Amino acid sequence: MTTTAARRERQREQLIDAAERAIAAKGLAGLKARELAQEIGCSLGAIYNLVADMDELVLRVGSRTLARLDAALSAASPPASSQEQATDALVAVALAYCAFARDNLQLWRMLFEHRMAEGSVVPDWAVSEQMTMFRHILQPLGILVPERSEEDRNLLGRTLFSAVHGVVAIGLEEKLIAVPRRELDRQIEGLVRLACRGLATDP
Amino acid sequence: MTTTAARRERQREQLIDAAERAIAAKGLAGLKARELAQEIGCSLGAIYNLVADMDELVLRVGSRTLARLDAALSAASPPASSQEQATDALVAVALAYCAFARDNLQLWRMLFEHRMAEGSVVPDWAVSEQMTMFRHILQPLGILVPERSEEDRNLLGRTLFSAVHGVVAIGLEEKLIAVPRRELDRQIEGLVRLACRGLATDP
Repeated sequence: MTTTAARRERQREQLIDAAERAIAAKGLAGLKARELAQEIGCSLGAIYNLVADMDELVLRVGSRTLARLDAALSAASPPASSQEQATDALVAVALAYCAFARDNLQLWRMLFEHRMAEGSVVPDWAVSEQMTMFRHILQPLGILVPERSEEDRNLLGRTLFSAVHGVVAIGLEEKLIAVPRRELDRQIEGLVRLACRGLATDP
Repeated sequence: MTTTAARRERQREQLIDAAERAIAAKGLAGLKARELAQEIGCSLGAIYNLVADMDELVLRVGSRTLARLDAALSAASPPASSQEQATDALVAVALAYCAFARDNLQLWRMLFEHRMAEGSVVPDWAVSEQMTMFRHILQPLGILVPERSEEDRNLLGRTLFSAVHGVVAIGLEEKLIAVPRRELDRQIEGLVRLACRGLATDP
């Protein structure tokens, strides 16, 4: 790498660091290009030599957040080999997802609140990083409902993820009634076990 | 009502109408006090004679949205009296919820995205309107799991609502993969029936 390229890369990392800190502290709405430029000591325009636009910057922060989430989910559940283990693995992954969201509230919200600028689409690398996360659900599902087609299991995995996500999102928002941590965990475990029992009696 | 009070009330309704249109068109972020004042022909300051603050204005729009949602859910499912009818009622309510969200995307999002200003709490009248909606789930649950305590059923109702909400929210965001309407309906029906089968085999 030439010195110029190395310096650019270093500054790019600093920019992503600064954006990550800003979002973690103040949420996506707290991300201001001008403040980031000031923090890393470059002009406002120079930011766009480091990333194409603010969308890319947010996606780069999202990429780091997803990598940490991925590590947390991997640590939560070893690969399952029996049906009972598969249910326990799904419960463990769901609880780890909730814990991660609670501990990284603003960064986790960003993953869902961020919308690309009009006319832009999420680039392939970001979509593929998101898709990779589903293996934590699809592996246990392969043991729970091996007779189903892969397409069916993908849809089911998506449904289960969305359902758990909904319980976590509404529980952490505390919009309706504040949900204490233990109760939210009970809700999540209850939902996953309910769904797994339902799968076992699939007509 | 005095003429002054009547005029104030009329202007208050116009303000809520204007806010509702603005949110429906541009989302919560598109709500600007200055533009509303211009639209109803009053000064910026005069708005705060009509509502206490922007939070109250958003809650008033939310109240109308909830009333329409309530009517849509009521129309979707007559009271159930057998277990089979109760499952069908839960499916119908969930599908009606999804249809409402799709047809009122920005107003529905507002119900969940709006956060009160720092230090303010949601007033009792708004909390109680939100709570009322749960009867659409609690009535069928009373038939499906009559042996459970009311507290248990309330928690279960909350979990099921949040789960369906998650599937709807992620499905309508189309962040990961665009979900065609029929497929999203299939996901929702699948989740509710799965949960109901799980309830029937409760250990």
